[in-house]
Order: sequence, then C-alpha cells, then structure tokens
Amino acid sequence: MADIKYEITETIGVLAESNKGWYKELNLISWNDRAPKYDIRDWSPDHEKMGKGVTLSREELIELKKLLNSMDL
Amino acid sequence: MADIKYEITETIGVLAESNKGWYKELNLISWNDRAPKYDIRDWSPDHEKMGKGVTLSREELIELKKLLNSMDL
Repeated sequence: MADIKYEITETIGVLAESNKGWYKELNLISWNDRAPKYDIRDWSPDHEKMGKGVTLSREELIELKKLLNSMDL
Repeated sequence: MADIKYEITETIGVLAESNKGWYKELNLISWNDRAPKYDIRDWSPDHEKMGKGVTLSREELIELKKLLNSMDL
C-alpha cells in the first residue's frame, strides 16, 4: 500500500470491531488526491494499516441503502 | 482465487454496472463451505471472476443500514 496516497476526509461510522482490534468502517476517502468516495474497509486502530474493502460512489451507496431497507434484517 | 471455494447462495441485488461490464453486487456467499456471509464485490457477468470486496455479518449489515439511514444521501 506504500504507493497509494489516501486521506480520510470523513469518518462516517464503525460497523464492527474485529477480534484483533481492527475496525470495519464506513468512511469518505480521497485516493491519490482524487475526489473522495465512500469506502467500507477494515482499519487498524490508528488508521495506519488497511484491509481489503470496497469503494462506492454516492449513487451506489443509495442503491445499497434501498436494498438494505428492502431486506428483512 | 483458484484455491478459494465459494458458492453464491443468494443474489440480493446489483448496486452498479461498471464500464467494463462487471457488476457490483450484494450477495450471500458461502466461502470454503462455511456458513454464508453477506458480501459486496465486483463480479464479471458470468460470476466466474471476482474483484476485491468486503464480507459482512448480519450484525454488520444492520449497522450499515442504520448508518445509511442516518445519512443525507
């Protein structure tokens, strides 16, 4: 990850804490100085290390919200 | 990915179609014969190739739903 520049422009919320103390978070992140996108990903407590995740546009997040609200969770 | 066994046990919905024709989907997937988990990920049209993604428990999906409903999307 050393050559990927990122800036967490907004921390929206935490979905869970893992056994090893990492957090699964929804954030707004700017990758390589581009416009920030929504991002669901595991992070170490200091946000220095990241796990795999997905990046989502606002439109994708709206679709996801619709799907979740249509589910019997 | 050759040594990871997976089965899409439920296709819940599509969030977006990418320029290259892949789909960003929310599915319920069983990895290596374990109990199925929710999963947000890019897929080729035939579900033969996958991109990076996140796996979420039911509890994490509920937290995500709460977060999304609290946002001004």
